[in-house]
Amino acid sequence: MSRIVIALGGNALGNTAQEQQQKIRRAAPALIGLIQQGNEILVSHGNGPQVGMINLAFDEAAKADKRIERMDLPECTAMSQGYIGYHLQKGITREVRRAGKPWKTATVVTQVVVDGQDPAFRNPTKPIGGFYDGKTAAKLMKENPGVTFVEDAGRGWRQVVASPKPLDIVEKDSIRSLLDDDFIVIACGGGGVPVIRDKDGDLHGVSAVIDKDFSAAKLAELVDAEYLFILTAVDHVAINYGTPEQKELWEMSLSDAERYCAEGQFAPGSMLPKVQAAMSFVKSGKGRKAIIASLEKAPDAIRGESGTVIHQ
Amino acid sequence: MSRIVIALGGNALGNTAQEQQQKIRRAAPALIGLIQQGNEILVSHGNGPQVGMINLAFDEAAKADKRIERMDLPECTAMSQGYIGYHLQKGITREVRRAGKPWKTATVVTQVVVDGQDPAFRNPTKPIGGFYDGKTAAKLMKENPGVTFVEDAGRGWRQVVASPKPLDIVEKDSIRSLLDDDFIVIACGGGGVPVIRDKDGDLHGVSAVIDKDFSAAKLAELVDAEYLFILTAVDHVAINYGTPEQKELWEMSLSDAERYCAEGQFAPGSMLPKVQAAMSFVKSGKGRKAIIASLEKAPDAIRGESGTVIHQ
Repeated sequence: MSRIVIALGGNALGNTAQEQQQKIRRAAPALIGLIQQGNEILVSHGNGPQVGMINLAFDEAAKADKRIERMDLPECTAMSQGYIGYHLQKGITREVRRAGKPWKTATVVTQVVVDGQDPAFRNPTKPIGGFYDGKTAAKLMKENPGVTFVEDAGRGWRQVVASPKPLDIVEKDSIRSLLDDDFIVIACGGGGVPVIRDKDGDLHGVSAVIDKDFSAAKLAELVDAEYLFILTAVDHVAINYGTPEQKELWEMSLSDAERYCAEGQFAPGSMLPKVQAAMSFVKSGKGRKAIIASLEKAPDAIRGESGTVIHQ
Repeated sequence: MSRIVIALGGNALGNTAQEQQQKIRRAAPALIGLIQQGNEILVSHGNGPQVGMINLAFDEAAKADKRIERMDLPECTAMSQGYIGYHLQKGITREVRRAGKPWKTATVVTQVVVDGQDPAFRNPTKPIGGFYDGKTAAKLMKENPGVTFVEDAGRGWRQVVASPKPLDIVEKDSIRSLLDDDFIVIACGGGGVPVIRDKDGDLHGVSAVIDKDFSAAKLAELVDAEYLFILTAVDHVAINYGTPEQKELWEMSLSDAERYCAEGQFAPGSMLPKVQAAMSFVKSGKGRKAIIASLEKAPDAIRGESGTVIHQ
């Protein structure tokens, strides 16, 4: 039996509550498949579209109704953990029941410690929310001080926020306790609520959204998982992507991965952070493996029949 | 050592994120006081103002931005669980650290099963959100189909929603597991996300907000607590309230409580549901006691030096 931390993309969860429930319903069999193979799973997820939607909803509402104030990003991520966690636990429980199994699910609201001096705070790069045309983006930037939009690869304008690296997971003990008691745990939603620890040890929320793959890697390290699964839209990591020499990889060692990163094989903001998160987990302890695979083929990937394994 | 379920009022948590953090900071010492007396605590909380704020924010945002859709009440309550749970776990952990104790906190996203045929669905009574003048309330009702506002005791107009009775708590096992492992658990926020169970056993969110005192009573019953603490703004339950014969009660038996309820001693929507929730817990098992007290005096109340004890 292996302990597996799964990182689900926020983009894979759709843009409305209804879409989210449908997509989770379709994703649940693959997750349950991993448990039926005898593994323990911990599900973490992104929240890019969702946290952006919540943040923007409060911005718009604050303009229309003076009783409502804008909502800071840590609180928006906390909301997204409740929102997505509720749908995930409902959807997973439904599939578990269909499989005739007794497993229970629990979502833990999770804070993740970052460094207040992380250079990411000076260079916002993490896209959140939906896509906008240039005119609307300019208007939203003017109306909402501190909000930054950038043009995103020809797809339109999107808000970007700071994305510092995760250092510690505040709720690691409760997550471990539930895992040890055989619960399917949903944690570190949206990369976790980003907090900094002051000199007294108190926690304070900071305006950022942590990359969910890096948080999942940290979580996998702290719960002593055997596998980190980064689930995405493609079956394999590829090199020479988009050229006649494109090659899908079934496995890569840490040194292969380092070389490919140095060669610029992986797109920043897309495959690069996934490969980097996978590498950070593999480096963190002996025998640890990361798999980048498509959601649908997760149960195949653990048998070596799909995905890309990153190993020592 | 006693296991105590605490029900905190949503109104006691303020109307903005900043107010909420301040109020929780002030409330935390009383909660920690109960643990320092050797008790185990489980914190549940209301979300009336918060769920209304979230619901309205999405209503307003959906009008301003076609990318954003209105958000149903179950999802709004799930969001409020993340939002309030994050602040509670941060605030409680801060106070625990100050007391030099090793206790850890965990917030569990909680679904609560209700009956789809509950008569409450035909008669919305639970106030949520802020107060509005009659003209604004009329405008909001016209613009947002299905939304009902009522005039609230001269204080203005407020949205009301259905408030069915809780029948079961979906995450009771994970909550119990964390309590047994000595965590301070935050659960059943906003009375829990209301769900109905269909004939296949699948769960579906329903448009309602469950009364947090009734959910806390159900939670206390299911985790086999010794005490249910309903914390409010007054030190004692009173009879002949607002008359020269007003009398503050230190204790009442179930039969006293039934008589007072029949006499109409307690205001519906205010003290009456608290007394009814207390009674339902006390009736549920031998030796179970409920205490209605002010937040600040919770540690005094357990020693019998404040509050009103409801007993068999």
